[in-house]
Amino acid sequence: MVKTIQKGLLATTAFVGLSAALGASAETLDDVMARRGLTQQDLVAAAKTYTPTGGRDEFIVFSSGGQSGQIMVYGVPSMRILKYVSVFTPEPWQGYGFDEESKAILEAGKVDGRELHWGDTHHPAITETNGDLDGEYLFINDKSAPRVGVISLHDFETQQIVVNPILQSEHGGTFVTPNSEYVIEAAQYPGVLGRGYAPLSQFNEKFRGAVTYWKFDREAGRIDPSKSFSLELPPYSQDLSDAGKLVSDGWSFTNSFCAERYVGGIESGRPPFEAGCSQNDTDYLHIINWRKAEEVYKAGKVTMINDHPVITMETAIAEGLVHLVAEPKSPHGVDVSPDGKFIVVGGKLDTQASVYSFEKIQKAIEEKKFSGVDPYGIPVIAMEDALHTQVPLGLGPLHNQFDSKPCVVYTSLYVDSQVAKWDYCEGKVLDKISIHYNIGHLVAMEGESVNPAGKYLISLNKLAIDRFNPVGPLHPQNHQLIDISGDKMELLYDMPVPLGEPHYATAIAAEKLKPLVRYKYGTNSRTGERHEGAVRPGQERIERDGTNVKVYMTAIRSHFTPEIVEVNEGDTVEFIITNSERAEDETHGFSVSTYDVNLSLEPGKTATAKIVADKPGAFSFYCTEFCSALHLEMTGYLMVKPKGYVEEEGAVSEGQAYSKEDYDRQTANNVATQEVIDSVVVYITERNYADFPEVVALVEDATDQLNFAADAKAKAEAAAASEDWQNATLWAGQWWQYQVKAADIGLRAKTFLDEHGAVKK
Amino acid sequence: MVKTIQKGLLATTAFVGLSAALGASAETLDDVMARRGLTQQDLVAAAKTYTPTGGRDEFIVFSSGGQSGQIMVYGVPSMRILKYVSVFTPEPWQGYGFDEESKAILEAGKVDGRELHWGDTHHPAITETNGDLDGEYLFINDKSAPRVGVISLHDFETQQIVVNPILQSEHGGTFVTPNSEYVIEAAQYPGVLGRGYAPLSQFNEKFRGAVTYWKFDREAGRIDPSKSFSLELPPYSQDLSDAGKLVSDGWSFTNSFCAERYVGGIESGRPPFEAGCSQNDTDYLHIINWRKAEEVYKAGKVTMINDHPVITMETAIAEGLVHLVAEPKSPHGVDVSPDGKFIVVGGKLDTQASVYSFEKIQKAIEEKKFSGVDPYGIPVIAMEDALHTQVPLGLGPLHNQFDSKPCVVYTSLYVDSQVAKWDYCEGKVLDKISIHYNIGHLVAMEGESVNPAGKYLISLNKLAIDRFNPVGPLHPQNHQLIDISGDKMELLYDMPVPLGEPHYATAIAAEKLKPLVRYKYGTNSRTGERHEGAVRPGQERIERDGTNVKVYMTAIRSHFTPEIVEVNEGDTVEFIITNSERAEDETHGFSVSTYDVNLSLEPGKTATAKIVADKPGAFSFYCTEFCSALHLEMTGYLMVKPKGYVEEEGAVSEGQAYSKEDYDRQTANNVATQEVIDSVVVYITERNYADFPEVVALVEDATDQLNFAADAKAKAEAAAASEDWQNATLWAGQWWQYQVKAADIGLRAKTFLDEHGAVKK
Repeated sequence: MVKTIQKGLLATTAFVGLSAALGASAETLDDVMARRGLTQQDLVAAAKTYTPTGGRDEFIVFSSGGQSGQIMVYGVPSMRILKYVSVFTPEPWQGYGFDEESKAILEAGKVDGRELHWGDTHHPAITETNGDLDGEYLFINDKSAPRVGVISLHDFETQQIVVNPILQSEHGGTFVTPNSEYVIEAAQYPGVLGRGYAPLSQFNEKFRGAVTYWKFDREAGRIDPSKSFSLELPPYSQDLSDAGKLVSDGWSFTNSFCAERYVGGIESGRPPFEAGCSQNDTDYLHIINWRKAEEVYKAGKVTMINDHPVITMETAIAEGLVHLVAEPKSPHGVDVSPDGKFIVVGGKLDTQASVYSFEKIQKAIEEKKFSGVDPYGIPVIAMEDALHTQVPLGLGPLHNQFDSKPCVVYTSLYVDSQVAKWDYCEGKVLDKISIHYNIGHLVAMEGESVNPAGKYLISLNKLAIDRFNPVGPLHPQNHQLIDISGDKMELLYDMPVPLGEPHYATAIAAEKLKPLVRYKYGTNSRTGERHEGAVRPGQERIERDGTNVKVYMTAIRSHFTPEIVEVNEGDTVEFIITNSERAEDETHGFSVSTYDVNLSLEPGKTATAKIVADKPGAFSFYCTEFCSALHLEMTGYLMVKPKGYVEEEGAVSEGQAYSKEDYDRQTANNVATQEVIDSVVVYITERNYADFPEVVALVEDATDQLNFAADAKAKAEAAAASEDWQNATLWAGQWWQYQVKAADIGLRAKTFLDEHGAVKK
Repeated sequence: MVKTIQKGLLATTAFVGLSAALGASAETLDDVMARRGLTQQDLVAAAKTYTPTGGRDEFIVFSSGGQSGQIMVYGVPSMRILKYVSVFTPEPWQGYGFDEESKAILEAGKVDGRELHWGDTHHPAITETNGDLDGEYLFINDKSAPRVGVISLHDFETQQIVVNPILQSEHGGTFVTPNSEYVIEAAQYPGVLGRGYAPLSQFNEKFRGAVTYWKFDREAGRIDPSKSFSLELPPYSQDLSDAGKLVSDGWSFTNSFCAERYVGGIESGRPPFEAGCSQNDTDYLHIINWRKAEEVYKAGKVTMINDHPVITMETAIAEGLVHLVAEPKSPHGVDVSPDGKFIVVGGKLDTQASVYSFEKIQKAIEEKKFSGVDPYGIPVIAMEDALHTQVPLGLGPLHNQFDSKPCVVYTSLYVDSQVAKWDYCEGKVLDKISIHYNIGHLVAMEGESVNPAGKYLISLNKLAIDRFNPVGPLHPQNHQLIDISGDKMELLYDMPVPLGEPHYATAIAAEKLKPLVRYKYGTNSRTGERHEGAVRPGQERIERDGTNVKVYMTAIRSHFTPEIVEVNEGDTVEFIITNSERAEDETHGFSVSTYDVNLSLEPGKTATAKIVADKPGAFSFYCTEFCSALHLEMTGYLMVKPKGYVEEEGAVSEGQAYSKEDYDRQTANNVATQEVIDSVVVYITERNYADFPEVVALVEDATDQLNFAADAKAKAEAAAASEDWQNATLWAGQWWQYQVKAADIGLRAKTFLDEHGAVKK
């Protein structure tokens, strides 16, 4: 009553006629539109976003994951979420914070000795070359603890977390200079630099803001804290920043709110922060000459706070590094135009956007034409000497992104729940579109670079009150895709954001990204170096040093080597595992039951699961990633012997005995299976498969499997030669398992050829 | 140079003409199809899945989040992910594992005293009433540690985690009985029951499997461990289960693999587990009379292991609770047909599905017609006495889901990467469709219930080799949506799965779900009870007991009360915060800089952030969820005084002084703003807004804000009366802030009315 698989293979081949399932639809297009209530406009939007199986997106968005502490990666125009990359928060699927290699990254992210288990991610930034996004690395900041994460876009893994040595609160990061020389991180709520204490009665005197310039070492792919510095600033709440570009390269711009320096206290009858921090009509834009600041830092004109070089306000003023200009009112976004000539600021409590001219600012600075100084002595440029234009847009202008069309910028209007498209050269509004509801940031494709790509804009909405099926009191956010290719903006798609509240996003042309599909054999992915514990198949071993046990292991479809690991209660056990697969997407996982550990082992990766075997028992370890038909059988036992347990003599008991008859039956089965595999091989090799790199990779993988099969076959035959029918039968079974894996891959290759128009040679 | 917001409100109203942005598309449909290479077939698929802004999905899928330890919730047919609900893994956006209330849930999930920070979620199940999905609660198991989570679908939050007292490994959960009397959890890799130790040489004698029946208390919405029991089983690797229904109600079915009871040991020359566990042509389906087992348990015929009642195999055999039947080969899915008459089993290494007849099984049991017993004495029914039919489907039949059409079932074929549609009554194949690649489970809409809904099927694919833009070595999985409404299956959509590897999913008609939009004021969402620390506005306070400080706090757009909290180094500080909003989706967060805590406070919720103030300094706390235009200003300070610090006398310093002129200017502004708000109020009230519940809720919220404004106005006027221009101006500013919030909501309401065809009364 059991049909073994080789008969099935034949049956399947005969069954191909039924497989042409993509036949004509029973419902016509008109039927479907009527049933689903779609308009013609909806259908066009559907056509502009729907991406058929196997299709690719034109742009990739890297969105902050908000309080999830992650990066969310999605495609445009399909708006399909492709991946969450964890940065500040442990995430078990990726093994992040569970393997020893990534724990080292999180360990470096401790603040003042305190372990942190999350991050409030805000503003991602992609590395730039000459102001153009280059897609090599990604940065993102944490508002809940002043930190910056570095993610490699070669493997989409977090490589580094650096802790700001002086801030207690930050928000205005990350922004990169045009050649990624520096990553900018600005303070938010003032504190005592170095995270010290002073009473609030000394707020004006002892509390400070700052902006930190983190040096990025492109070759190492890491921030170099030893070459980074900060600039002390007044206790305004610094906010977003942007780096100058082209004509304004060498400068950076950081805005602020609460220039009132108000300290709340509603519990003692004072008006709350929100009132006192929004009373004035203007706050301050900080204009910083970072290139000159770098020189001042290199000249040693710094004060060390927590071993970190800080240029004091006094020095900054004396050296002419920082100037202020008023900006209306509780602003958020400060965005430099693609040509570097203008700085666009939205004031959330203003109704207009303000466009500052870099040329005018420079002229005022050169001529020392200031309207005065702020309470800390920083020169203030009069608004009229810096403004190019102000444009009434609506309620709550918040953030700006640039189009590929000259002079065109898009501004989010928080209170109006609209996006305004306007001309910042001429100072006129071109179009508006309503969103649902309450847009925070927006992102245009490469819209912050020197070469914006236009085409699409995404509105990062804060609410989703009436947009989606209800999922309880905590709602998703809503990212709305807008077509900006024409004169008028068109809403295309609503994407619920299922996890976290993204604050900001950045988007890059997909073709610029060239991530790896596998690691070089034995890579520690968190360092990029060869892992010292990596082993090749055949080199696996268990080493004991006192109570420390190291298990050098490999993983391949569908077994670990070794499979049985015996330790004593109280031992520390490190499983250092290398995935010895070459095949794309052939990831294995590793967990030990009840022992709170998980690894994600992509092909070529080596990672370490470290546990303390503090509880005796027989614990299964297993592959946590569905890797093959025999995935559930990819298991083993960690035997933790109780203290004082005296082992009885005894071999592993056999649950089932096999005879020569079993062996003969299995080998006959294998021979039949091989015939089918051979027929698939013929099918593939008769076609121009070498023209399809995907199929070439599959054929390589299948060849690997057949080599393993040959190896198992040899073992079976050797056992049979000595009439050990038990092992002969089981190794013959293993030979068949490799055949099944080869057949699996062969069928994938065959399908690919069929669907991609391969031709018979 | 600053235009305050009331002018902007007027400007916006005048600007409405430009807002009609959903005009004709510049590109025609044909243009778009040509540019994007879409076929007519693609367009139909697009129309079948594209969901315009504000549209709702017909079905909601609850998918396992795999190793992420979460539940993924998405809509069908749009395939948009709506929410991740964390179950076993801490997740900061939801505050899960960060607030004290949810920490209590995770604390209960400790195994043998060990904290666990993740789960390998496998099989979700929705509560049933008479075999129909009722959408009240959701269960999911953890394979990495034998646990079950309970999620309330009233608020989409995890309410409970229970730890299996006897298993070291499980996999075959969760499955519910037709009235959710029990939640079934089956062992996977054999262990010593109670998580004890025995050497592998005694595997056959001392290692065991089991199945646990967790009693669900519907009224409490919790599993009741004190009324739950287990059944000891042989050391086969138990796998998936299903409960009988209708005619087979009272029975459950659990399959197995590795009935060979093979123990690997590749490191010592033995063939690996995968060979030894797949050598036999058949494994065993366990047929269990759970209703009778319940009686046996209630009669006290149990052995207590770790205080948990276990029915031994000896008792089970004596009482006739368990029978076996052979099933081919390394099976996975075991699925009872909607009418309860058939049990469909797929054997991953077989090529056919096996359909067992419940009637035949019953007959054999009644007649005691057995082919023998297994090595543990359990009666074995001959396959021929239990089988209805076997149907050749292809390679790797894995899991089965039922259609609304009689006798129609869908089976995933792992190795073939296909779905087979077939008739289990007649035993014939009806259709096949290829997927990309390597399908594990599949889910049809309500496809496991007594009333399958048909329409859609989702293929849960394990690989996404060539389907999406590359995102590094770790690929997404791929859920493919298939239209099953017609005779032939049609592929509609590829959805990348960005986080975790879902193993299984369940889908329910969206209309059956009726989640809350807000909590009753002051709810502890993890217990559903009123939180003992909840306070109303005006009741906020700080209580100190030795070094324990409790801060009873409220949160509302856009301030916390209190705003300044002073403690001493070393104090334990609990912030017990109630969100006093009534408005839907008006969630606040709460974090203290560098102190590793985050809350998600949905309207009405009370939650606790507990920290040890072990580091002195001035630390900001702030709202972590973008809640209003003044969100960034929703902040305060935790002042941690250093040990031995002597506070100097001194009031909070004022960064900015205000005069009568400032007050007059602010109040004039407010009066003008009120005129605009009044005009919006007129606009709304002139229309039939009461017909739109969403707008009624917005109007309630706006009314709240205007009441707050009146309160702030009174404070401003009182301060002005005593010529305290500082506080008068600031309270006038606060009055204006409430006006801005009212205007924000008013504009949302106006937009809603405009877009939903409201008419002037």
